Amino acid sequence: MEDFLININGIISKGPEAKISVFDRGFLYGDSVYEATRTFEQRPFRIERHIDRLFLSAEKISLVPTYSKKMILHEVLKTIEASPHKNITLRIVLTRGTNSDLGLDTDLAGPNNLIIFAREIKPNPSEWLTDGVSMIFYQKEIESRGSLPKTGNYQENIQAYKKAHEQKAFDAFMVNTNGHVTEGTTSNAWIIKNGILLTPPLLDGVLDGLTRKTLIEMAHAKALPLALMEKSLSKDEFLEADECFLTSTTRNIVPVTKIENRLINGGLPGPITLKLLKLYLDFVK
Amino acid sequence: MEDFLININGIISKGPEAKISVFDRGFLYGDSVYEATRTFEQRPFRIERHIDRLFLSAEKISLVPTYSKKMILHEVLKTIEASPHKNITLRIVLTRGTNSDLGLDTDLAGPNNLIIFAREIKPNPSEWLTDGVSMIFYQKEIESRGSLPKTGNYQENIQAYKKAHEQKAFDAFMVNTNGHVTEGTTSNAWIIKNGILLTPPLLDGVLDGLTRKTLIEMAHAKALPLALMEKSLSKDEFLEADECFLTSTTRNIVPVTKIENRLINGGLPGPITLKLLKLYLDFVK
Repeated sequence: MEDFLININGIISKGPEAKISVFDRGFLYGDSVYEATRTFEQRPFRIERHIDRLFLSAEKISLVPTYSKKMILHEVLKTIEASPHKNITLRIVLTRGTNSDLGLDTDLAGPNNLIIFAREIKPNPSEWLTDGVSMIFYQKEIESRGSLPKTGNYQENIQAYKKAHEQKAFDAFMVNTNGHVTEGTTSNAWIIKNGILLTPPLLDGVLDGLTRKTLIEMAHAKALPLALMEKSLSKDEFLEADECFLTSTTRNIVPVTKIENRLINGGLPGPITLKLLKLYLDFVK
Repeated sequence: MEDFLININGIISKGPEAKISVFDRGFLYGDSVYEATRTFEQRPFRIERHIDRLFLSAEKISLVPTYSKKMILHEVLKTIEASPHKNITLRIVLTRGTNSDLGLDTDLAGPNNLIIFAREIKPNPSEWLTDGVSMIFYQKEIESRGSLPKTGNYQENIQAYKKAHEQKAFDAFMVNTNGHVTEGTTSNAWIIKNGILLTPPLLDGVLDGLTRKTLIEMAHAKALPLALMEKSLSKDEFLEADECFLTSTTRNIVPVTKIENRLINGGLPGPITLKLLKLYLDFVK
Protein backbone atom coordinates (compact mmCIF):
# COMPACT_ATOMS: atom_id res chain seq x y z
CA MET A 1 0.00 0.00 0.00
CA GLU A 2 3.09 2.25 0.16
CA ASP A 3 2.73 3.25 -3.49
CA PHE A 4 -0.85 4.51 -3.09
CA LEU A 5 -2.22 8.00 -2.67
CA ILE A 6 -5.52 7.99 -0.80
CA ASN A 7 -8.06 10.80 -0.89
CA ILE A 8 -10.52 10.62 2.02
CA ASN A 9 -13.23 13.28 1.81
CA GLY A 10 -10.82 15.64 0.07
CA ILE A 11 -7.74 15.05 2.26
CA ILE A 12 -4.94 13.28 0.40
CA SER A 13 -2.48 11.11 2.32
CA LYS A 14 -0.12 8.20 1.65
CA GLY A 15 -1.49 4.65 1.67
CA PRO A 16 -0.26 3.44 5.06
CA GLU A 17 -1.62 6.52 6.87
CA ALA A 18 -5.10 6.42 5.34
CA LYS A 19 -7.65 5.39 7.93
CA ILE A 20 -11.41 5.38 8.30
CA SER A 21 -13.72 5.18 11.32
CA VAL A 22 -14.64 1.65 12.43
CA PHE A 23 -18.22 2.99 12.44
CA ASP A 24 -18.09 3.56 8.69
CA ARG A 25 -20.89 1.42 7.23
CA GLY A 26 -18.56 0.18 4.52
CA PHE A 27 -16.49 -1.43 7.25
CA LEU A 28 -19.43 -2.58 9.40
CA TYR A 29 -21.70 -4.00 6.69
CA GLY A 30 -20.09 -3.68 3.26
CA ASP A 31 -22.55 -0.80 2.81
CA SER A 32 -20.71 1.03 0.02
CA VAL A 33 -20.51 1.27 -3.75
CA TYR A 34 -17.41 1.62 -5.89
CA GLU A 35 -15.94 2.07 -9.35
CA ALA A 36 -12.56 1.07 -10.73
CA THR A 37 -11.07 3.11 -13.56
CA ARG A 38 -7.72 4.30 -14.91
CA THR A 39 -5.97 7.17 -16.62
CA PHE A 40 -4.23 7.08 -19.99
CA GLU A 41 -1.46 9.73 -19.92
CA GLN A 42 -3.04 11.59 -16.98
CA ARG A 43 -6.44 11.66 -18.67
CA PRO A 44 -9.14 9.68 -16.81
CA PHE A 45 -10.94 7.09 -18.96
CA ARG A 46 -14.65 7.87 -19.41
CA ILE A 47 -14.79 9.25 -15.90
CA GLU A 48 -18.24 10.80 -16.24
CA ARG A 49 -19.62 7.38 -17.15
CA HIS A 50 -17.95 5.80 -14.14
CA ILE A 51 -19.43 8.43 -11.84
CA ASP A 52 -22.85 7.93 -13.47
CA ARG A 53 -22.56 4.21 -12.82
CA LEU A 54 -21.44 4.82 -9.22
CA PHE A 55 -24.68 6.75 -8.75
CA LEU A 56 -26.68 3.93 -10.39
CA SER A 57 -25.13 1.42 -7.96
CA ALA A 58 -25.95 3.78 -5.10
CA GLU A 59 -29.56 4.03 -6.30
CA LYS A 60 -29.89 0.23 -6.41
CA ILE A 61 -29.11 0.01 -2.70
CA SER A 62 -30.99 3.25 -1.85
CA LEU A 63 -27.76 4.96 -0.82
CA VAL A 64 -28.58 8.67 -1.03
CA PRO A 65 -25.44 10.50 -2.21
CA THR A 66 -24.45 13.50 -0.09
CA TYR A 67 -21.72 14.16 -2.67
CA SER A 68 -22.70 15.60 -6.06
CA LYS A 69 -21.26 14.08 -9.25
CA LYS A 70 -19.37 17.34 -9.74
CA MET A 71 -17.76 17.14 -6.29
CA ILE A 72 -16.67 13.55 -6.93
CA LEU A 73 -15.23 14.51 -10.33
CA HIS A 74 -13.36 17.37 -8.64
CA GLU A 75 -11.82 15.00 -6.05
CA VAL A 76 -10.89 12.46 -8.73
CA LEU A 77 -9.11 15.13 -10.82
CA LYS A 78 -7.39 16.47 -7.69
CA THR A 79 -6.12 12.96 -6.90
CA ILE A 80 -4.85 12.44 -10.46
CA GLU A 81 -3.03 15.77 -10.27
CA ALA A 82 -1.43 14.87 -6.95
CA SER A 83 -0.01 11.65 -8.41
CA PRO A 84 3.46 11.76 -10.02
CA HIS A 85 2.41 9.01 -12.46
CA LYS A 86 0.77 9.34 -15.86
CA ASN A 87 -0.99 5.99 -15.95
CA ILE A 88 -2.78 5.28 -12.72
CA THR A 89 -5.49 2.95 -11.55
CA LEU A 90 -8.27 4.52 -9.50
CA ARG A 91 -10.75 2.95 -7.12
CA ILE A 92 -13.57 5.29 -6.11
CA VAL A 93 -15.51 4.16 -3.03
CA LEU A 94 -18.62 5.90 -1.71
CA THR A 95 -19.91 4.59 1.62
CA ARG A 96 -23.30 5.32 3.16
CA GLY A 97 -21.41 7.17 5.89
CA THR A 98 -20.29 6.82 9.49
CA ASN A 99 -22.89 5.38 11.87
CA SER A 100 -23.64 7.10 15.18
CA ASP A 101 -24.36 3.67 16.73
CA LEU A 102 -24.21 0.00 15.72
CA GLY A 103 -27.28 -0.99 13.70
CA LEU A 104 -28.56 -1.61 10.18
CA ASP A 105 -30.88 1.43 10.28
CA THR A 106 -29.63 3.73 7.50
CA ASP A 107 -30.87 6.77 9.47
CA LEU A 108 -27.92 6.21 11.82
CA ALA A 109 -25.52 7.22 9.03
CA GLY A 110 -23.95 10.66 8.75
CA PRO A 111 -22.83 12.06 5.38
CA ASN A 112 -21.17 9.69 2.87
CA ASN A 113 -17.47 8.99 3.03
CA LEU A 114 -15.66 9.28 -0.31
CA ILE A 115 -12.40 7.36 -0.58
CA ILE A 116 -10.27 7.42 -3.74
CA PHE A 117 -7.35 4.98 -4.10
CA ALA A 118 -4.69 5.81 -6.72
CA ARG A 119 -1.44 4.14 -7.72
CA GLU A 120 0.66 3.70 -10.85
CA ILE A 121 -0.83 1.08 -13.13
CA LYS A 122 1.33 -1.95 -13.78
CA PRO A 123 1.44 -3.08 -17.41
CA ASN A 124 -0.13 -6.50 -18.03
CA PRO A 125 2.49 -9.29 -17.78
CA SER A 126 3.71 -10.08 -21.32
CA GLU A 127 2.80 -13.79 -20.93
CA TRP A 128 -0.87 -12.82 -20.92
CA LEU A 129 -0.45 -11.95 -24.61
CA THR A 130 1.86 -14.81 -25.58
CA ASP A 131 0.29 -17.62 -23.52
CA GLY A 132 -3.07 -16.35 -22.35
CA VAL A 133 -4.52 -17.18 -18.91
CA SER A 134 -6.42 -20.17 -17.49
CA MET A 135 -9.84 -20.15 -15.83
CA ILE A 136 -12.05 -22.44 -13.76
CA PHE A 137 -15.83 -22.40 -13.23
CA TYR A 138 -17.32 -21.36 -9.89
CA GLN A 139 -20.93 -22.12 -9.01
CA LYS A 140 -22.47 -18.98 -7.53
CA GLU A 141 -24.87 -19.11 -4.60
CA ILE A 142 -26.52 -15.80 -5.43
CA GLU A 143 -29.56 -15.88 -7.70
CA SER A 144 -29.30 -14.02 -10.96
CA ARG A 145 -31.48 -10.93 -10.74
CA GLY A 146 -30.36 -8.56 -13.44
CA SER A 147 -27.35 -6.31 -13.56
CA LEU A 148 -25.48 -6.16 -10.26
CA PRO A 149 -24.53 -3.04 -8.31
CA LYS A 150 -20.86 -2.79 -7.40
CA THR A 151 -21.00 -2.87 -3.60
CA GLY A 152 -18.61 -3.68 -0.78
CA ASN A 153 -20.25 -7.14 -0.46
CA TYR A 154 -17.65 -9.21 -2.26
CA GLN A 155 -17.45 -12.42 -0.26
CA GLU A 156 -18.65 -14.69 -3.07
CA ASN A 157 -16.10 -13.29 -5.53
CA ILE A 158 -13.38 -13.77 -2.90
CA GLN A 159 -14.36 -17.43 -2.58
CA ALA A 160 -14.39 -17.85 -6.37
CA TYR A 161 -10.98 -16.23 -6.75
CA LYS A 162 -9.60 -18.32 -3.89
CA LYS A 163 -10.75 -21.55 -5.53
CA ALA A 164 -9.14 -20.51 -8.83
CA HIS A 165 -5.93 -19.58 -7.06
CA GLU A 166 -5.80 -22.94 -5.25
CA GLN A 167 -6.11 -24.68 -8.61
CA LYS A 168 -3.31 -22.50 -10.08
CA ALA A 169 -5.80 -20.84 -12.41
CA PHE A 170 -5.79 -17.11 -13.15
CA ASP A 171 -9.41 -16.54 -12.16
CA ALA A 172 -12.88 -18.10 -12.10
CA PHE A 173 -15.89 -17.73 -14.36
CA MET A 174 -18.88 -17.33 -12.08
CA VAL A 175 -21.85 -19.58 -13.01
CA ASN A 176 -25.36 -18.56 -11.92
CA THR A 177 -28.05 -20.86 -10.54
CA ASN A 178 -29.50 -21.28 -14.05
CA GLY A 179 -26.18 -22.74 -15.18
CA HIS A 180 -25.18 -19.68 -17.20
CA VAL A 181 -21.66 -18.27 -17.15
CA THR A 182 -21.81 -14.66 -16.01
CA GLU A 183 -18.37 -13.04 -15.59
CA GLY A 184 -14.91 -13.27 -13.99
CA THR A 185 -14.49 -12.12 -10.39
CA THR A 186 -13.39 -8.65 -11.55
CA SER A 187 -13.90 -8.79 -15.33
CA ASN A 188 -16.46 -9.48 -18.07
CA ALA A 189 -16.45 -12.74 -20.05
CA TRP A 190 -16.47 -13.19 -23.85
CA ILE A 191 -16.23 -15.97 -26.39
CA ILE A 192 -15.92 -16.10 -30.18
CA LYS A 193 -17.71 -18.95 -31.98
CA ASN A 194 -18.11 -19.38 -35.73
CA GLY A 195 -17.08 -15.78 -36.33
CA ILE A 196 -19.54 -14.26 -33.85
CA LEU A 197 -18.56 -12.36 -30.70
CA LEU A 198 -20.69 -13.44 -27.73
CA THR A 199 -21.04 -12.13 -24.17
CA PRO A 200 -23.64 -12.88 -21.46
CA PRO A 201 -26.47 -10.33 -21.05
CA LEU A 202 -26.62 -8.12 -17.93
CA LEU A 203 -29.83 -9.89 -16.86
CA ASP A 204 -27.89 -13.08 -16.17
CA GLY A 205 -26.28 -11.26 -13.20
CA VAL A 206 -23.41 -9.41 -14.82
CA LEU A 207 -21.62 -6.19 -13.89
CA ASP A 208 -22.15 -3.52 -16.53
CA GLY A 209 -18.41 -3.19 -17.31
CA LEU A 210 -17.30 -0.13 -19.22
CA THR A 211 -14.81 -2.02 -21.42
CA ARG A 212 -17.67 -4.44 -22.18
CA LYS A 213 -19.86 -1.47 -23.06
CA THR A 214 -17.13 0.08 -25.22
CA LEU A 215 -16.72 -3.12 -27.25
CA ILE A 216 -20.50 -3.34 -27.71
CA GLU A 217 -20.59 0.25 -28.93
CA MET A 218 -17.69 -0.40 -31.30
CA ALA A 219 -19.56 -3.44 -32.68
CA HIS A 220 -22.72 -1.39 -33.21
CA ALA A 221 -20.64 1.27 -34.97
CA LYS A 222 -19.25 -1.50 -37.24
CA ALA A 223 -15.76 -0.81 -35.92
CA LEU A 224 -15.16 -4.51 -35.18
CA PRO A 225 -14.43 -7.22 -37.78
CA LEU A 226 -17.27 -9.46 -36.59
CA ALA A 227 -20.90 -9.45 -35.47
CA LEU A 228 -21.83 -9.32 -31.77
CA MET A 229 -24.60 -10.99 -29.77
CA GLU A 230 -25.52 -10.67 -26.09
CA LYS A 231 -26.85 -14.10 -25.15
CA SER A 232 -26.97 -16.50 -22.18
CA LEU A 233 -24.04 -18.91 -22.46
CA SER A 234 -23.52 -22.30 -20.84
CA LYS A 235 -20.29 -23.76 -19.51
CA ASP A 236 -20.20 -26.07 -22.57
CA GLU A 237 -20.40 -23.09 -24.90
CA PHE A 238 -17.34 -21.63 -23.16
CA LEU A 239 -15.48 -24.96 -23.29
CA GLU A 240 -16.23 -25.34 -27.02
CA ALA A 241 -15.45 -21.72 -27.94
CA ASP A 242 -13.07 -20.91 -30.80
CA GLU A 243 -11.60 -18.09 -28.70
CA CYS A 244 -12.22 -16.68 -25.24
CA PHE A 245 -11.17 -13.52 -23.41
CA LEU A 246 -11.81 -11.25 -20.43
CA THR A 247 -12.26 -7.48 -20.34
CA SER A 248 -11.73 -5.01 -17.53
CA THR A 249 -11.00 -1.30 -17.37
CA THR A 250 -7.61 -1.78 -15.75
CA ARG A 251 -6.47 -4.82 -17.79
CA ASN A 252 -8.17 -4.09 -21.14
CA ILE A 253 -8.48 -7.46 -23.00
CA VAL A 254 -6.90 -10.65 -21.63
CA PRO A 255 -6.90 -13.83 -23.78
CA VAL A 256 -8.13 -17.02 -22.07
CA THR A 257 -6.45 -20.16 -23.41
CA LYS A 258 -7.55 -22.80 -20.92
CA ILE A 259 -10.82 -23.38 -19.04
CA GLU A 260 -10.80 -26.16 -16.43
CA ASN A 261 -8.76 -28.84 -18.28
CA ARG A 262 -9.76 -27.81 -21.79
CA LEU A 263 -7.45 -25.83 -24.07
CA ILE A 264 -9.07 -23.00 -26.03
CA ASN A 265 -7.67 -22.35 -29.53
CA GLY A 266 -5.05 -25.02 -28.90
CA GLY A 267 -3.77 -23.13 -25.86
CA LEU A 268 -2.85 -19.95 -27.73
CA PRO A 269 -4.40 -16.48 -27.66
CA GLY A 270 -6.92 -16.29 -30.50
CA PRO A 271 -6.11 -14.21 -33.60
CA ILE A 272 -9.42 -12.29 -33.44
CA THR A 273 -8.88 -11.61 -29.72
CA LEU A 274 -5.51 -10.03 -30.46
CA LYS A 275 -7.05 -7.97 -33.26
CA LEU A 276 -9.81 -6.76 -30.91
CA LEU A 277 -7.18 -5.77 -28.34
CA LYS A 278 -5.37 -3.65 -30.93
CA LEU A 279 -8.61 -2.01 -32.12
CA TYR A 280 -9.64 -1.35 -28.52
CA LEU A 281 -6.34 0.26 -27.53
CA ASP A 282 -6.35 2.42 -30.68
CA PHE A 283 -9.89 3.47 -29.82
CA VAL A 284 -9.29 4.45 -26.19
CA LYS A 285 -6.00 6.22 -26.93
CA MET B 1 -20.40 6.51 18.84
CA GLU B 2 -19.24 8.70 21.76
CA ASP B 3 -20.39 6.13 24.33
CA PHE B 4 -18.33 3.29 22.84
CA LEU B 5 -14.98 1.86 23.85
CA ILE B 6 -13.19 0.29 20.90
CA ASN B 7 -10.40 -2.27 21.19
CA ILE B 8 -8.36 -2.52 17.96
CA ASN B 9 -5.73 -5.26 18.12
CA GLY B 10 -5.35 -4.72 21.86
CA ILE B 11 -5.33 -0.90 21.91
CA ILE B 12 -8.43 0.56 23.55
CA SER B 13 -9.67 4.00 22.50
CA LYS B 14 -12.90 5.98 22.54
CA GLY B 15 -15.41 5.49 19.72
CA PRO B 16 -14.80 8.64 17.68
CA GLU B 17 -11.01 8.09 17.63
CA ALA B 18 -11.13 4.43 16.55
CA LYS B 19 -9.92 4.07 12.97
CA ILE B 20 -8.86 1.27 10.67
CA SER B 21 -6.79 1.21 7.46
CA VAL B 22 -8.80 1.71 4.26
CA PHE B 23 -6.87 -1.36 3.03
CA ASP B 24 -8.51 -3.54 5.68
CA ARG B 25 -10.37 -6.26 3.79
CA GLY B 26 -13.42 -5.76 5.98
CA PHE B 27 -13.69 -2.26 4.56
CA LEU B 28 -12.72 -3.17 0.97
CA TYR B 29 -14.82 -6.32 0.53
CA GLY B 30 -16.83 -7.06 3.67
CA ASP B 31 -14.22 -9.79 4.24
CA SER B 32 -14.72 -10.23 7.98
CA VAL B 33 -16.68 -12.28 10.49
CA TYR B 34 -18.33 -11.09 13.69
CA GLU B 35 -20.24 -11.99 16.83
CA ALA B 36 -22.58 -9.91 18.96
CA THR B 37 -22.88 -10.68 22.65
CA ARG B 38 -23.43 -8.99 25.99
CA THR B 39 -22.51 -9.05 29.65
CA PHE B 40 -24.84 -9.59 32.60
CA GLU B 41 -23.36 -7.80 35.64
CA GLN B 42 -19.86 -7.66 34.07
CA ARG B 43 -19.92 -11.38 33.22
CA PRO B 44 -19.86 -12.12 29.48
CA PHE B 45 -22.70 -14.36 28.26
CA ARG B 46 -21.48 -17.73 26.92
CA ILE B 47 -18.39 -16.03 25.54
CA GLU B 48 -16.53 -19.27 24.72
CA ARG B 49 -19.45 -20.32 22.53
CA HIS B 50 -19.43 -16.98 20.75
CA ILE B 51 -15.72 -17.28 20.07
CA ASP B 52 -16.20 -20.87 18.87
CA ARG B 53 -18.87 -19.65 16.49
CA LEU B 54 -16.67 -16.78 15.31
CA PHE B 55 -14.11 -19.41 14.33
CA LEU B 56 -16.79 -21.49 12.58
CA SER B 57 -17.82 -18.44 10.55
CA ALA B 58 -14.15 -17.84 9.73
CA GLU B 59 -13.76 -21.44 8.59
CA LYS B 60 -16.78 -21.15 6.30
CA ILE B 61 -15.09 -18.34 4.36
CA SER B 62 -11.59 -19.90 4.69
CA LEU B 63 -10.41 -17.00 6.84
CA VAL B 64 -7.37 -18.38 8.65
CA PRO B 65 -7.28 -16.86 12.17
CA THR B 66 -3.95 -15.34 13.18
CA TYR B 67 -5.51 -14.77 16.62
CA SER B 68 -6.02 -17.74 18.94
CA LYS B 69 -9.33 -18.19 20.78
CA LYS B 70 -7.44 -17.50 24.00
CA MET B 71 -6.06 -14.19 22.71
CA ILE B 72 -9.54 -13.09 21.62
CA LEU B 73 -11.00 -14.05 25.00
CA HIS B 74 -8.22 -12.07 26.68
CA GLU B 75 -9.03 -8.96 24.62
CA VAL B 76 -12.77 -9.32 25.27
CA LEU B 77 -12.21 -9.55 29.04
CA LYS B 78 -9.80 -6.59 28.89
CA THR B 79 -12.46 -4.54 27.09
CA ILE B 80 -15.14 -5.48 29.63
CA GLU B 81 -12.81 -4.48 32.46
CA ALA B 82 -12.06 -1.13 30.82
CA SER B 83 -15.77 -0.31 30.62
CA PRO B 84 -17.39 1.53 33.56
CA HIS B 85 -20.70 -0.27 32.86
CA LYS B 86 -21.94 -3.61 34.19
CA ASN B 87 -24.25 -4.50 31.34
CA ILE B 88 -22.63 -3.94 28.00
CA THR B 89 -23.19 -5.04 24.45
CA LEU B 90 -20.14 -6.34 22.59
CA ARG B 91 -19.49 -6.69 18.88
CA ILE B 92 -16.41 -8.76 18.08
CA VAL B 93 -15.15 -8.34 14.49
CA LEU B 94 -12.31 -10.36 12.99
CA THR B 95 -11.20 -9.24 9.52
CA ARG B 96 -8.97 -11.18 7.15
CA GLY B 97 -6.41 -8.41 7.62
CA THR B 98 -4.97 -5.38 5.88
CA ASN B 99 -4.19 -5.83 2.17
CA SER B 100 -0.81 -4.80 0.76
CA ASP B 101 -2.52 -3.91 -2.55
CA LEU B 102 -6.04 -3.77 -3.97
CA GLY B 103 -7.23 -7.23 -5.04
CA LEU B 104 -9.37 -10.19 -4.00
CA ASP B 105 -6.33 -12.49 -3.58
CA THR B 106 -6.34 -13.48 0.10
CA ASP B 107 -2.53 -13.84 -0.01
CA LEU B 108 -2.39 -10.02 -0.11
CA ALA B 109 -3.68 -9.89 3.49
CA GLY B 110 -1.44 -9.37 6.50
CA PRO B 111 -2.46 -10.66 9.96
CA ASN B 112 -6.13 -10.39 11.01
CA ASN B 113 -7.47 -7.22 12.56
CA LEU B 114 -9.53 -7.75 15.73
CA ILE B 115 -11.98 -4.97 16.60
CA ILE B 116 -14.18 -5.10 19.70
CA PHE B 117 -17.00 -2.57 20.13
CA ALA B 118 -18.41 -2.09 23.64
CA ARG B 119 -21.06 0.20 25.08
CA GLU B 120 -23.64 0.14 27.85
CA ILE B 121 -26.64 -1.92 26.88
CA LYS B 122 -29.91 -0.07 26.71
CA PRO B 123 -32.86 -1.88 28.29
CA ASN B 124 -35.56 -2.93 25.80
CA PRO B 125 -38.26 -0.21 25.49
CA SER B 126 -41.12 -1.17 27.81
CA GLU B 127 -43.65 -1.02 24.93
CA TRP B 128 -42.04 -4.12 23.44
CA LEU B 129 -43.48 -6.05 26.38
CA THR B 130 -46.83 -4.30 26.60
CA ASP B 131 -47.59 -3.87 22.87
CA GLY B 132 -45.11 -6.11 21.04
CA VAL B 133 -43.56 -5.14 17.70
CA SER B 134 -44.70 -5.34 14.06
CA MET B 135 -42.97 -7.12 11.20
CA ILE B 136 -43.13 -7.32 7.41
CA PHE B 137 -41.93 -10.04 5.03
CA TYR B 138 -38.89 -9.47 2.81
CA GLN B 139 -38.17 -11.74 -0.15
CA LYS B 140 -34.47 -12.63 -0.08
CA GLU B 141 -32.39 -12.80 -3.24
CA ILE B 142 -29.80 -15.17 -1.77
CA GLU B 143 -30.41 -18.89 -2.12
CA SER B 144 -30.78 -20.84 1.09
CA ARG B 145 -27.72 -23.02 1.52
CA GLY B 146 -27.58 -24.09 5.11
CA SER B 147 -26.56 -22.13 8.17
CA LEU B 148 -25.06 -18.77 7.31
CA PRO B 149 -21.69 -17.44 8.49
CA LYS B 150 -21.86 -14.01 10.13
CA THR B 151 -19.77 -11.93 7.72
CA GLY B 152 -19.42 -8.24 6.90
CA ASN B 153 -21.61 -8.80 3.80
CA TYR B 154 -24.87 -7.41 5.12
CA GLN B 155 -26.37 -5.56 2.18
CA GLU B 156 -29.46 -7.76 1.88
CA ASN B 157 -30.31 -7.37 5.57
CA ILE B 158 -29.88 -3.60 5.22
CA GLN B 159 -32.38 -3.58 2.36
CA ALA B 160 -34.82 -5.72 4.38
CA TYR B 161 -34.54 -3.46 7.42
CA LYS B 162 -34.93 -0.38 5.24
CA LYS B 163 -38.15 -1.69 3.72
CA ALA B 164 -39.52 -2.49 7.19
CA HIS B 165 -38.56 0.96 8.45
CA GLU B 166 -40.25 2.67 5.49
CA GLN B 167 -43.45 0.79 6.31
CA LYS B 168 -43.17 1.80 9.99
CA ALA B 169 -42.55 -1.81 10.99
CA PHE B 170 -40.00 -2.86 13.60
CA ASP B 171 -38.14 -5.27 11.33
CA ALA B 172 -38.54 -7.75 8.47
CA PHE B 173 -38.81 -11.53 8.37
CA MET B 174 -36.53 -12.69 5.57
CA VAL B 175 -38.14 -15.21 3.19
CA ASN B 176 -35.91 -17.56 1.19
CA THR B 177 -36.35 -18.54 -2.45
CA ASN B 178 -38.30 -21.65 -1.39
CA GLY B 179 -40.86 -19.39 0.27
CA HIS B 180 -39.78 -20.26 3.81
CA VAL B 181 -39.45 -17.65 6.53
CA THR B 182 -35.87 -17.73 7.86
CA GLU B 183 -35.18 -15.01 10.45
CA GLY B 184 -35.29 -11.29 11.27
CA THR B 185 -32.47 -9.05 10.01
CA THR B 186 -30.60 -9.43 13.33
CA SER B 187 -32.68 -12.00 15.22
CA ASN B 188 -34.15 -15.51 15.04
CA ALA B 189 -37.85 -16.08 14.35
CA TRP B 190 -40.32 -18.20 16.35
CA ILE B 191 -44.01 -19.02 16.40
CA ILE B 192 -46.28 -20.93 18.77
CA LYS B 193 -49.15 -22.93 17.21
CA ASN B 194 -51.48 -25.32 19.00
CA GLY B 195 -49.19 -25.44 22.01
CA ILE B 196 -46.02 -26.25 20.03
CA LEU B 197 -42.99 -23.97 19.79
CA LEU B 198 -41.70 -23.77 16.21
CA THR B 199 -38.59 -22.22 14.63
CA PRO B 200 -37.08 -22.63 11.14
CA PRO B 201 -34.15 -25.09 10.81
CA LEU B 202 -30.63 -23.78 10.14
CA LEU B 203 -30.69 -25.43 6.70
CA ASP B 204 -33.31 -22.94 5.51
CA GLY B 205 -30.58 -20.26 5.68
CA VAL B 206 -30.67 -19.20 9.31
CA LEU B 207 -28.02 -17.77 11.63
CA ASP B 208 -27.22 -20.17 14.45
CA GLY B 209 -28.23 -17.68 17.18
CA LEU B 210 -27.14 -18.40 20.72
CA THR B 211 -30.44 -17.37 22.28
CA ARG B 212 -32.14 -19.68 19.77
CA LYS B 213 -29.76 -22.45 20.79
CA THR B 214 -30.33 -21.78 24.50
CA LEU B 215 -34.13 -22.06 24.08
CA ILE B 216 -33.69 -25.32 22.15
CA GLU B 217 -31.47 -26.72 24.90
CA MET B 218 -33.98 -25.63 27.54
CA ALA B 219 -36.74 -27.40 25.60
CA HIS B 220 -34.67 -30.59 25.35
CA ALA B 221 -34.02 -30.40 29.10
CA LYS B 222 -37.81 -30.13 29.61
CA ALA B 223 -37.32 -26.69 31.16
CA LEU B 224 -40.00 -25.14 28.91
CA PRO B 225 -43.77 -25.60 29.31
CA LEU B 226 -44.23 -26.82 25.72
CA ALA B 227 -42.76 -29.07 23.03
CA LEU B 228 -40.40 -27.71 20.37
CA MET B 229 -39.98 -28.49 16.68
CA GLU B 230 -37.47 -27.17 14.15
CA LYS B 231 -39.37 -27.11 10.87
CA SER B 232 -39.58 -25.08 7.65
CA LEU B 233 -42.34 -22.51 8.02
CA SER B 234 -44.28 -20.60 5.38
CA LYS B 235 -45.46 -17.00 5.53
CA ASP B 236 -49.01 -18.30 6.06
CA GLU B 237 -47.88 -20.31 9.08
CA PHE B 238 -46.47 -17.11 10.57
CA LEU B 239 -49.64 -15.13 9.75
CA GLU B 240 -51.82 -17.81 11.35
CA ALA B 241 -49.64 -18.33 14.44
CA ASP B 242 -51.13 -18.19 17.94
CA GLU B 243 -48.05 -16.29 19.13
CA CYS B 244 -44.85 -15.03 17.52
CA PHE B 245 -41.58 -13.66 18.82
CA LEU B 246 -37.96 -12.83 18.01
CA THR B 247 -34.80 -13.78 19.89
CA SER B 248 -31.38 -12.15 19.93
CA THR B 249 -28.52 -12.10 22.40
CA THR B 250 -28.80 -8.38 23.02
CA ARG B 251 -32.61 -8.15 23.10
CA ASN B 252 -33.51 -11.54 24.56
CA ILE B 253 -37.13 -12.30 23.58
CA VAL B 254 -39.29 -9.70 21.80
CA PRO B 255 -43.01 -10.42 21.24
CA VAL B 256 -44.33 -9.86 17.68
CA THR B 257 -47.97 -8.78 17.61
CA LYS B 258 -48.43 -7.78 13.98
CA ILE B 259 -47.10 -9.22 10.69
CA GLU B 260 -47.88 -7.24 7.55
CA ASN B 261 -51.50 -6.23 8.23
CA ARG B 262 -52.40 -9.21 10.38
CA LEU B 263 -52.64 -9.00 14.18
CA ILE B 264 -51.09 -11.89 16.10
CA ASN B 265 -52.85 -12.91 19.34
CA GLY B 266 -55.24 -9.99 18.85
CA GLY B 267 -52.31 -7.56 18.83
CA LEU B 268 -51.06 -8.42 22.31
CA PRO B 269 -47.86 -10.21 23.41
CA GLY B 270 -48.70 -13.89 23.85
CA PRO B 271 -48.95 -15.39 27.34
CA ILE B 272 -46.58 -18.26 26.53
CA THR B 273 -44.08 -15.81 24.98
CA LEU B 274 -44.03 -13.78 28.21
CA LYS B 275 -43.59 -16.97 30.23
CA LEU B 276 -40.67 -18.03 28.00
CA LEU B 277 -39.06 -14.61 28.49
CA LYS B 278 -39.23 -15.02 32.27
CA LEU B 279 -37.82 -18.56 32.14
CA TYR B 280 -35.06 -17.43 29.79
CA LEU B 281 -34.01 -14.48 31.98
CA ASP B 282 -34.02 -16.67 35.08
CA PHE B 283 -31.87 -19.19 33.23
CA VAL B 284 -29.21 -16.77 31.96
CA LYS B 285 -28.97 -14.86 35.24
